[in-house]
Amino acid sequence: MIKTGIVGGTGYTGVELLRLLATHPQVDVTQITSRSEAGRSVSELYGSLRGHFDIAFSEPDPQALAECDLVFFATPNGTAMKMTPDLLAAGVRVIDLAADFRLQDTALWEQWYGMPHACPDVLAEAVYGLPELNREKIRNARIVANPGCYPTAAALGYLPLVEQGLIATDNLIADCKSGVSGAGRGASTAMLMGEVGESFKAYAVPGHRHMPEIRQTLSWVSKTPVGLTFTPHLVPMIRGIHATLYATLVDDAGDLQALYETRYADEPFVDVLPAGSHPETRSVRGVNHCRIALHRPQGGNTLVILSVIDNLTKGAAGQAVQNMNLMFGLDERCGLEQVALLP
Amino acid sequence: MIKTGIVGGTGYTGVELLRLLATHPQVDVTQITSRSEAGRSVSELYGSLRGHFDIAFSEPDPQALAECDLVFFATPNGTAMKMTPDLLAAGVRVIDLAADFRLQDTALWEQWYGMPHACPDVLAEAVYGLPELNREKIRNARIVANPGCYPTAAALGYLPLVEQGLIATDNLIADCKSGVSGAGRGASTAMLMGEVGESFKAYAVPGHRHMPEIRQTLSWVSKTPVGLTFTPHLVPMIRGIHATLYATLVDDAGDLQALYETRYADEPFVDVLPAGSHPETRSVRGVNHCRIALHRPQGGNTLVILSVIDNLTKGAAGQAVQNMNLMFGLDERCGLEQVALLP
Amino acid sequence: MIKTGIVGGTGYTGVELLRLLATHPQVDVTQITSRSEAGRSVSELYGSLRGHFDIAFSEPDPQALAECDLVFFATPNGTAMKMTPDLLAAGVRVIDLAADFRLQDTALWEQWYGMPHACPDVLAEAVYGLPELNREKIRNARIVANPGCYPTAAALGYLPLVEQGLIATDNLIADCKSGVSGAGRGASTAMLMGEVGESFKAYAVPGHRHMPEIRQTLSWVSKTPVGLTFTPHLVPMIRGIHATLYATLVDDAGDLQALYETRYADEPFVDVLPAGSHPETRSVRGVNHCRIALHRPQGGNTLVILSVIDNLTKGAAGQAVQNMNLMFGLDERCGLEQVALLP
Amino acid sequence: MIKTGIVGGTGYTGVELLRLLATHPQVDVTQITSRSEAGRSVSELYGSLRGHFDIAFSEPDPQALAECDLVFFATPNGTAMKMTPDLLAAGVRVIDLAADFRLQDTALWEQWYGMPHACPDVLAEAVYGLPELNREKIRNARIVANPGCYPTAAALGYLPLVEQGLIATDNLIADCKSGVSGAGRGASTAMLMGEVGESFKAYAVPGHRHMPEIRQTLSWVSKTPVGLTFTPHLVPMIRGIHATLYATLVDDAGDLQALYETRYADEPFVDVLPAGSHPETRSVRGVNHCRIALHRPQGGNTLVILSVIDNLTKGAAGQAVQNMNLMFGLDERCGLEQVALLP
Repeated sequence: MIKTGIVGGTGYTGVELLRLLATHPQVDVTQITSRSEAGRSVSELYGSLRGHFDIAFSEPDPQALAECDLVFFATPNGTAMKMTPDLLAAGVRVIDLAADFRLQDTALWEQWYGMPHACPDVLAEAVYGLPELNREKIRNARIVANPGCYPTAAALGYLPLVEQGLIATDNLIADCKSGVSGAGRGASTAMLMGEVGESFKAYAVPGHRHMPEIRQTLSWVSKTPVGLTFTPHLVPMIRGIHATLYATLVDDAGDLQALYETRYADEPFVDVLPAGSHPETRSVRGVNHCRIALHRPQGGNTLVILSVIDNLTKGAAGQAVQNMNLMFGLDERCGLEQVALLP
Repeated sequence: MIKTGIVGGTGYTGVELLRLLATHPQVDVTQITSRSEAGRSVSELYGSLRGHFDIAFSEPDPQALAECDLVFFATPNGTAMKMTPDLLAAGVRVIDLAADFRLQDTALWEQWYGMPHACPDVLAEAVYGLPELNREKIRNARIVANPGCYPTAAALGYLPLVEQGLIATDNLIADCKSGVSGAGRGASTAMLMGEVGESFKAYAVPGHRHMPEIRQTLSWVSKTPVGLTFTPHLVPMIRGIHATLYATLVDDAGDLQALYETRYADEPFVDVLPAGSHPETRSVRGVNHCRIALHRPQGGNTLVILSVIDNLTKGAAGQAVQNMNLMFGLDERCGLEQVALLP
Repeated sequence: MIKTGIVGGTGYTGVELLRLLATHPQVDVTQITSRSEAGRSVSELYGSLRGHFDIAFSEPDPQALAECDLVFFATPNGTAMKMTPDLLAAGVRVIDLAADFRLQDTALWEQWYGMPHACPDVLAEAVYGLPELNREKIRNARIVANPGCYPTAAALGYLPLVEQGLIATDNLIADCKSGVSGAGRGASTAMLMGEVGESFKAYAVPGHRHMPEIRQTLSWVSKTPVGLTFTPHLVPMIRGIHATLYATLVDDAGDLQALYETRYADEPFVDVLPAGSHPETRSVRGVNHCRIALHRPQGGNTLVILSVIDNLTKGAAGQAVQNMNLMFGLDERCGLEQVALLP
Repeated sequence: MIKTGIVGGTGYTGVELLRLLATHPQVDVTQITSRSEAGRSVSELYGSLRGHFDIAFSEPDPQALAECDLVFFATPNGTAMKMTPDLLAAGVRVIDLAADFRLQDTALWEQWYGMPHACPDVLAEAVYGLPELNREKIRNARIVANPGCYPTAAALGYLPLVEQGLIATDNLIADCKSGVSGAGRGASTAMLMGEVGESFKAYAVPGHRHMPEIRQTLSWVSKTPVGLTFTPHLVPMIRGIHATLYATLVDDAGDLQALYETRYADEPFVDVLPAGSHPETRSVRGVNHCRIALHRPQGGNTLVILSVIDNLTKGAAGQAVQNMNLMFGLDERCGLEQVALLP
């Protein structure tokens, strides 16, 4: 059993992690910390967990965490980077579900996150936890940066084309849509149901932190800097991300459907739909899958790739569990074989 | 492995049954029938099932069904009663998720369902599949009538009080609310999102078929005819039932919270919340639990019992699996240990 | 033109008042105060008001308010009672959309609202602003207590029966459901879409402040103390209240449908639906109407009255405008002739 | 008073037209036809219209319609083109809210709509009813083709740029999102709340009928054929369209914000938001406005234009009323001065 601690267990990423770990056969969650809810039982805050967890939230205690095999951070940005160096020194492995280790370029990180990075050396060591790209590195990583939700959906949608050099990468357009749980569980007016229900809008069009992250991933693969317009939108639903990705073909591409099917044939969590499909976010509700469909409208040079994930699962906690499975030599699917909740 | 057939697999009850059986370790689904979708692969209709079921819908074939150990009917009312006698004769056990075997009084059944009953003798043999009431009978049943969704929520909420004779049973009031999936997946104008989204209404106030079913259950327990006003409402959400149950105390009741906790202490799927709680339907989304809270406002004689289930799980397919587990000697929880999807 | 000030214009009640006053032909809104948003233009906060209001929110200024003919308070409880005495002294008339003047019994008010009342003498003078009950008093009132949302729906549903003494009033049950805008626009976790979307629950079952208010109204009419169990619920939609009201007939009632139709024949904003109807909350979305239907299931002694309003319109700002029209001698319908937004 | 008939009044476009005409001071609706609902009172079908319309749906009667000044068609595609020639011959003016007269190229129309056109000569005469483009022609038109919902949002968003020749028009991308009312009120499984609630998807990516319509409008303006990728998506909400429009600058553009503000300065129903804004669909719920914001992320060459309308109002019935006002010499705003319903 993997002795596991969770720092910051009260947000949506935290409760999703608890949902998945509750039925994971190889994990023993020994600590769930929360400054604000310390002392309160986990199942009191989340009625859905009654009968699954008997423990209470606790104050974060570095010594107790140091006894874990693995610590997940489901905290706001800026927390994990302060605690990770000591945990690594104590031999604990770390998966950060926040953004502290996602951008390898420290200056770029500091520009987008607006604070100095607490441990650039650890950042340099961190592995970007997208198994479909970095599986082998993840197995041996001490510190894994769990990808952002939009970047997961966008990267998986673009990867086969960029790997094969089939599209122009100077002017990609990623028009992405997310359910409201992506904004977290903090008290706010902006995310009240009275504000976001029955309405749709774009946000952060001038610049969103996931833009440089998507660019970084695609640039690694294309080996050249990538140009990207990224437009996030808010959908009046709780879970799900839909990435509508546009690209211009630069080469006569052959059978693109076959390219995608081959690229992802051995991936347990990427499902290429039959030609002509339109994936729905509900088809991945609560599961770790990404479903992708590829279109070439009217046979033109513009490709439209549709990629859906559950932002809390493949876009956060599910991918973190997948990374944990890799790090600890388990079957990658272990604990992640739920069926999507539909309807 | 239990060789299992599903008749009528295309509705919401059917897909929920498939979701649960996909990960059930003791079930082999050998046939899923649908007249309208015969020949179409199950995972094409329900993208959420891709990778879980390789079979296609087939025309109902009595001979093939006769080779099953168990057949579930997830059909409109009136279908199961026509096919069940032959299946029983062939040694197949049957669980009907529709209403054909729910009311023991044939005349009452015919009055509420508006057609003659095809097999009153089988009806007489059928066991009402509420495990919390009829567990031992279910184990040996050949034919189980899976309870309605509202009747499950209402019966579990009232049971401890009625068993102990603590409330007046001549004038109960059950004010119940259901998500839209309760109305099924048939094409209609009335259940379009444009019609039922962002709105709330009561329906069938003059009379709903679940009223006599609730009365039947409570009358069995109280051993006298029960008077009941039952008001169903439609909630603009997909899953969930919330029963708000009113009763007048006729006896000084002692510790009612303890009564409920004791009554359900050994029930794997009934969870009595701490005093003062307000259960949310989302706390049981996708799971087979009923969560109950008991209130006595201002210490008066009117009790208010709050009971929530997922209408498709404990209110339909989950309870059917629970009944199957009992019928085949499995652990009652087998295949039903999911955690509710929250948020 | 009525010179009008609004104190506390940033909440949902405030913006609804602005929506209605924007097209009211006899009103000139000269001031909209907000401590938190002072200096910000009204249409910046509420894009829906662009082109309708050119003014900015201002700090509350007693002198400026004293120059109004009428001041609406759309503030949290406890604000209006502090400012009203001076306004009345300056000859300004006041409509309080909060609860400061709703309960005539000061001790009862203090018990439910948890603070001392600032001006019991003004409270004694205040008129409860339910036009269907108090029309003539409202015309001459200096200070009107605008009723709560649940109390409006419940009172209008019960009134004809209580006035005629046809029902037992010692044990009424009002099972009420509200959209989320009833909880206001303040930052909170509890009302995030991620928390309340796709779920349904009861709340405040042990006791809600609208319970004594409903009792007060019905007791005025019945001239005896009324017993009431009031259960509020939260519906995952933005606007609308549905009251499901139960009562036991004590007298052979004659034609109850005719009783309701007669009682409300001259009421511009109460619409008795044909026998057998089930009103939907969407049928009153954005309008000042209450729609009511009456049922007597299976001809028994239990009546079920269904009453729907828009909680922000007839349940708050619309009723306030109706009261204003009465106070200033206008046609009661003035500015309130919108058609409900359906779908 | 304009004597007005509505053919096909039972769909969402029809009821929205009735909502707007109910309070229009210059319109007398003398007939509302529906084959399926003939004889049923309008307010019985739509409770929101109780008190506003006393008439019943009638069978379409050419003679009665011929007595109108104006007939609106809110019918499925293919109906208006059959009845319009006779109406025009009788001196009746026509506004078709369906697609029969939207594409000027008959062959193109027949290709996309899959039927022969019944009156190509009338098609040649029809004026495309986008007032911001064709105001003067509309004033004198006998037959107006009311634009599609997506085409309205997209055209208004692109117009200033295309008129000035500032963007490349060979490869535009319009990523558009619509609420479910755009799919109409016909019985279907696909649009059940259980199917489309809490989920998001693209549809018709290989080709949608609004694509050639948008291309036609932009090609008129640019005077060259326009290349367009159009991706419609379905949002789990009832009303609203959000067009996210991408374009590549080909010229140093100067102050684009000023360009938009100037272009639309005199337009009563186009509202250019301040720089940096993100319009919400709710800000136009129930009103005839289009709100637009312009972005140039990171100062690059890709422009992102955000354009929102209510699909039933500016995208259908509201624009039809606006066109009627123009055709009959009324103030263009007449009957269209509602405030958006927010929240």
